[in-house]
Amino acid sequence: MNIRTISWVHNKIRIIDQTKLPGRTEYLYINDLKALWQAIKELKVRGAPALGAAAALGSYIGIRHSRQNSFGSFMAELDKAIRYIGSSRPTARNLFWALERVRVAAVANRHRDINYIKSVILQEALAIIEEDRASCRRIGDYGCRLISDGDTILTVCNAGILATIDYGTALGVIYRACEKRKDIKVYACETRPLLQGARLTTWELKKKGVDATLICDNMAAALMRAGKIDKVITGADRIAANGDSANKIGTYNLAVLCRHHNIPFYIAAPGSTFDQGIKSGGDIIIEERPAKEVTEMLFKKPVAATGVKVFNPAFDVTDHSLISAIITDKGIIRPPYKRNIRSRLLR
Amino acid sequence: MNIRTISWVHNKIRIIDQTKLPGRTEYLYINDLKALWQAIKELKVRGAPALGAAAALGSYIGIRHSRQNSFGSFMAELDKAIRYIGSSRPTARNLFWALERVRVAAVANRHRDINYIKSVILQEALAIIEEDRASCRRIGDYGCRLISDGDTILTVCNAGILATIDYGTALGVIYRACEKRKDIKVYACETRPLLQGARLTTWELKKKGVDATLICDNMAAALMRAGKIDKVITGADRIAANGDSANKIGTYNLAVLCRHHNIPFYIAAPGSTFDQGIKSGGDIIIEERPAKEVTEMLFKKPVAATGVKVFNPAFDVTDHSLISAIITDKGIIRPPYKRNIRSRLLR
Repeated sequence: MNIRTISWVHNKIRIIDQTKLPGRTEYLYINDLKALWQAIKELKVRGAPALGAAAALGSYIGIRHSRQNSFGSFMAELDKAIRYIGSSRPTARNLFWALERVRVAAVANRHRDINYIKSVILQEALAIIEEDRASCRRIGDYGCRLISDGDTILTVCNAGILATIDYGTALGVIYRACEKRKDIKVYACETRPLLQGARLTTWELKKKGVDATLICDNMAAALMRAGKIDKVITGADRIAANGDSANKIGTYNLAVLCRHHNIPFYIAAPGSTFDQGIKSGGDIIIEERPAKEVTEMLFKKPVAATGVKVFNPAFDVTDHSLISAIITDKGIIRPPYKRNIRSRLLR
Repeated sequence: MNIRTISWVHNKIRIIDQTKLPGRTEYLYINDLKALWQAIKELKVRGAPALGAAAALGSYIGIRHSRQNSFGSFMAELDKAIRYIGSSRPTARNLFWALERVRVAAVANRHRDINYIKSVILQEALAIIEEDRASCRRIGDYGCRLISDGDTILTVCNAGILATIDYGTALGVIYRACEKRKDIKVYACETRPLLQGARLTTWELKKKGVDATLICDNMAAALMRAGKIDKVITGADRIAANGDSANKIGTYNLAVLCRHHNIPFYIAAPGSTFDQGIKSGGDIIIEERPAKEVTEMLFKKPVAATGVKVFNPAFDVTDHSLISAIITDKGIIRPPYKRNIRSRLLR
């Protein structure tokens, strides 16, 4: 099985349209910035690391036909593209990290000609993609050490192949454990409102041959009470300097349940998800999404009273105090997070 | 606004078909036992107190055309109807309580003629209905004392008009607080998989003019963390002698969240929900329902990988240690529950 969430094919961004899963595996070829923005906004491509790759390729698409001759005016165009892509979704750190990285690469080559800078930007984006592939495998290697043969692991949303390039962060740990012949069972929270757990995680776990069981989000507590969960592993969208972690709504709920039931709660994320510019979770911008995602499910049919008010945050923030360890591509980080994140990621 | 979930009309059980809400208010007239069993199984009528009323009326429907002349053979027929109704859903105590009550009334009149016993059974069922109406109002009166002006209250599933005859238990407390001119806001958990919170609770709160906001079940923790919830009130389906309470799946989750965030967690239920025959929650039978409720949502369209395993318990059990108080029609019961439940309910 060889799934690739994002690739650069025939000078276009090729993505799996995740809104069509699990029913159909449909590829979408993206050729312009507006289409990319829409694809991100509508979650056709999602997951923090995948958003980083998409944003970086997008920045190239945004400037590849630029006719500017001076670096200054070229950069103005690049920055416009970067701002536009950045306006799609506010929470995932990787998206902004990738855009910054592309920008830095451009500035580093400010004295070269514009066509060369364009090619640097493309190469940087492709490097981000290749690095993600390696990074996820390192996360898998490190995380695998925390997993025992026979473990039953609960996860939420999708932090797998479909959230990265081709391996996954939280699910990467599970895939690596399975490759090492550990006997692992997975429970997937369906992840309302957009059901990434039901639609995407069960789809890729089945494709990878992992023993998977689907539950509604509100069933996790009963499973834990029954002693059926050994560990919880989730991804992250942005991790503050103190370890507070924003991830898909419902993650914080699971972390509280883990604390109550004395179950380890792990986050798996690459270095690019960490935001040293943000001191704690309170400063992370949480995207709120349209009411209709809740009131009309996926089927555009009303399931609530007409006109009822809705609160629909896409993410929540888990206190670092509830996180047993953060599994990164540079090793496993344990408390005290503020110090250990700095020393691990900046070394 | 005058909604009546169940009534006895023209010698038929009239129920609001709750699977059609919030789209259509459709009444269903039930004339035979098989149709009642189906209506209960498919949650056209649901909610512990409403199930009690439906079961009692059902027992009358089951024997009203009986041609038995002897008490013994008549009782055999009644018991067959009682067993059949009881086989519909195992968890709600009120259903079995009502059936037992009807049976006791029949036995008490064993020396009367069969037609008289039939009328006794109908009268007992109608008494259960009238008592529920009064009981919910008493629950509202008692519970209202726990509610402060300005409170924001979170609830799950539907423990309102549609779970009772015409007032509600958990929502009865809220209605009473509103009648007393307390300024109350309500957050309703949508309650996957069957969305009773989204479909039923927002519908009746809007009809009653209560300020209501809908959330997905996995958003409650984020709301609590933000300090937006003052109290949680839910109904119950069966309460053990020690106070452990079975209620809609997700209730236990909320109770754990309340403990972590230092928020009072209340259960509201009539005496008929208590089961002195069950020592603790571990002995309560938890109904598991079909996988398709999770994998196909309400719309019979797949939202998960084909053939994925599913765990779909309809209820969970909340430890009495997590319950701040139980609001009953006989007063507010606080810990120690074992002693106080006995003294309050058996006095």
